[in-house]
Amino acid sequence: MIEQREAEPEVHEDEFQLSQSELEAIGRAIDDGDRTMLDKLLDDVHAADIADLIEQLAPQRRRKFLDLYSGEIDGEILSEIDESIREEVVEQLPREVLAEAVREMDSDDVVDLIEDLEAPERQVILEALDEPDRAAVEQSLTYPEYSAGRLMQSETVTAPEHWTVGEAIDFLRQEDWLPDQFYHVILVDPRQHPIGYVTLGKLLASRRHIPLREITEDSFRTISAREDEGDVAYAFNKYHLISAPVVDDHDRLVGVITIDDAMSVLDEEHEEDFLRMARVSDDSHVSDGPLETAKQRLPWLIINLFTASLSALVISRFEQTLAQLVILAALMPIVASTGGIAGTQSLAVAVRALATRELTSSNARRVILRELLAGLLNGLGLALILTLAGTFILGDIQIGLVLGMAMIANQIVAAMGGVLVPLGLGKLGLDPALASGTFVTTMTDMMGFFAFLGLASWILV
Amino acid sequence: MIEQREAEPEVHEDEFQLSQSELEAIGRAIDDGDRTMLDKLLDDVHAADIADLIEQLAPQRRRKFLDLYSGEIDGEILSEIDESIREEVVEQLPREVLAEAVREMDSDDVVDLIEDLEAPERQVILEALDEPDRAAVEQSLTYPEYSAGRLMQSETVTAPEHWTVGEAIDFLRQEDWLPDQFYHVILVDPRQHPIGYVTLGKLLASRRHIPLREITEDSFRTISAREDEGDVAYAFNKYHLISAPVVDDHDRLVGVITIDDAMSVLDEEHEEDFLRMARVSDDSHVSDGPLETAKQRLPWLIINLFTASLSALVISRFEQTLAQLVILAALMPIVASTGGIAGTQSLAVAVRALATRELTSSNARRVILRELLAGLLNGLGLALILTLAGTFILGDIQIGLVLGMAMIANQIVAAMGGVLVPLGLGKLGLDPALASGTFVTTMTDMMGFFAFLGLASWILV
Repeated sequence: MIEQREAEPEVHEDEFQLSQSELEAIGRAIDDGDRTMLDKLLDDVHAADIADLIEQLAPQRRRKFLDLYSGEIDGEILSEIDESIREEVVEQLPREVLAEAVREMDSDDVVDLIEDLEAPERQVILEALDEPDRAAVEQSLTYPEYSAGRLMQSETVTAPEHWTVGEAIDFLRQEDWLPDQFYHVILVDPRQHPIGYVTLGKLLASRRHIPLREITEDSFRTISAREDEGDVAYAFNKYHLISAPVVDDHDRLVGVITIDDAMSVLDEEHEEDFLRMARVSDDSHVSDGPLETAKQRLPWLIINLFTASLSALVISRFEQTLAQLVILAALMPIVASTGGIAGTQSLAVAVRALATRELTSSNARRVILRELLAGLLNGLGLALILTLAGTFILGDIQIGLVLGMAMIANQIVAAMGGVLVPLGLGKLGLDPALASGTFVTTMTDMMGFFAFLGLASWILV
Repeated sequence: MIEQREAEPEVHEDEFQLSQSELEAIGRAIDDGDRTMLDKLLDDVHAADIADLIEQLAPQRRRKFLDLYSGEIDGEILSEIDESIREEVVEQLPREVLAEAVREMDSDDVVDLIEDLEAPERQVILEALDEPDRAAVEQSLTYPEYSAGRLMQSETVTAPEHWTVGEAIDFLRQEDWLPDQFYHVILVDPRQHPIGYVTLGKLLASRRHIPLREITEDSFRTISAREDEGDVAYAFNKYHLISAPVVDDHDRLVGVITIDDAMSVLDEEHEEDFLRMARVSDDSHVSDGPLETAKQRLPWLIINLFTASLSALVISRFEQTLAQLVILAALMPIVASTGGIAGTQSLAVAVRALATRELTSSNARRVILRELLAGLLNGLGLALILTLAGTFILGDIQIGLVLGMAMIANQIVAAMGGVLVPLGLGKLGLDPALASGTFVTTMTDMMGFFAFLGLASWILV
């Protein structure tokens, strides 16, 4: 059951990544204030790795590093830096370095950078941009946070719908400014409505006289600038899109989203779900300090104090039973905790299936029934083990039977709660990943204690 | 704290996806055996959505659907079908339909399809392929499962390193066979070693006489065919790669991986981690039946029976104390469960940070210290609440103090376990997402009961 392949990444060194000895040398260079050495060590290192380095440094060393190296921070490094330390880094950069860096960046990266910053830093960056770039960034910022409009780059490559391959190629050769990466030429009508696109591969492989309209892709789709970025990432992954035109409320082309940005969003959405299921704020970062970390986690711990008190209330109803048979106190967590595991299992499958839209209203009833039956089956299996264990280890078949019956009841509650709670929260417009766990484990804890102690006071005492 | 934006996907309908009423009409057409209606309803529906439909149908309806519609199943639909039902679908397709479908597919999709199939079906598919395609698929299959060699497509677009832009464009125009999607022309030396690549955008934007070598990308990197697919996805996301050449052990070009495949892998790896953390097999699918579902989940439930028995053993050591003060039985789960939540929080952050390589040996000590301090802080905060609650609700400051002190101890254990256990499992070459949860909650349960009952028997009884 325990597979080994997952662990490999930790073992072997990536050919790009900084090695342990390089990291140590960089640490020494920072401490010595040796700027020449630092430049030498970081020459040829990928921007993403420099950004990682900055994130991993302890706060004091980070400040020292930025003092020494800030002249070298360019647009590429800046757009790779994690939002948790972005503000700190931006504040420490000399204005002219910052201005130079943002001028190099695509409009989507500038938007990503400044949307987290305070007004004064925003202003510095906006003022550093040339007029068309600034207008593009300001337009993006009019769309809601986490929308396609914030994710898109406004630099698009378009061609009138009546052009031929030759005309398009000549046009591309003449343009002295084109985006760093683009994968399609978007055909637009005279009112800037996108009506199809041609891959660069097709453009290159086709004869000059062929009309662009004849070689457009079948799977063309536009994205509304107001669409949620999570939906955009989902569509890219599902329909294997490479880039997609973004349109405003009047269906006019306002930008383009490329798959690398959609992939980052997919990655973030997954991370968010993962952390939320474990009741951790998705603002958690490795670079956070202890106080920040404690503050992020405390609310859910306090909520758990309350829900656990409900279980305590259930148990306290059976004080008399417990006083007569103290061993019940030792056994009752078995029923509760196994229910908690089963509830989490059922919940995790349901939350994933909701996120990937594999669980829909068309199959919800079948999935609920499946969970019910699976819960019943596992309840029976676990009950059998517990009854045998009760009989042979504790020497008391009645305790074994009580454990077993309580387990069956709790497995069913766990299985049902695991699927019904996220479905219900989804219907209420809440994120199932966020609050379901608390509801489900509260249910399984309370049911576990109640069923076990209730049956015990009925049968055993 | 509860944000609403996540829930939106459930509410609004995707313009591509099948609507509820369309799904119902399709269901009726299947039940009526109305093939014409089915063809009409599914005309223009994206292959990915037809695959989703097939997955979501109940097993019986699925068979009926395939009987009616199998003639229309093409390579695109086949490569979109989830592995959980792939074998079933392949078995039901007429041989000539299957053969026709696989001939349309790129080599990577064929590999993805047949690697899960039994030998006889594999053979049928291999025999249906033309000789060069079959050789490519067979070569891919020589690489380990989940390696870059399995993920790559063997169709590559290359150019000799000394060519000019004009020569490359003329060559592309002449080729009557090119991959559906390609983003770079790979420059190779005479021994087929890739030495750089040119984006199609640059190729189109450059004058004909310019040597390709002058317009290659800076961030060129090759991938070894033996590299783990998870590492490949990580590299694509981190370095914003769009496609990357894959090389064999002699650094010769054998294929290319494109970002859409890397995005799928990233998605799967996340899903795997998510499910594993919840102790669910990553083979779980919405289409699984109750028996399969129960079987997948039972092993971890049985393991939990054993670990919970360890807690029962701890509690049974304090039977005398419990007999004297039964309220302790009601209060003890509060300490244990709050520790469990804290342990899961700390664990989730550590598992993510290990997966994204933000937690490395260079900052492990700082992160451990941070967790320790955060655990201590939250322990103090929770202890304060519990002491006050004990004093004012239970009217017993001593019980409040015992609860508080036990909570501090358990929060520290939780915080430490949450980071040290995954680090330790990683060092042992095991997947931290898989087994850490069991270790950590066993630790927090045992420590919760032990600290609380131990302190209680010392102070209260």
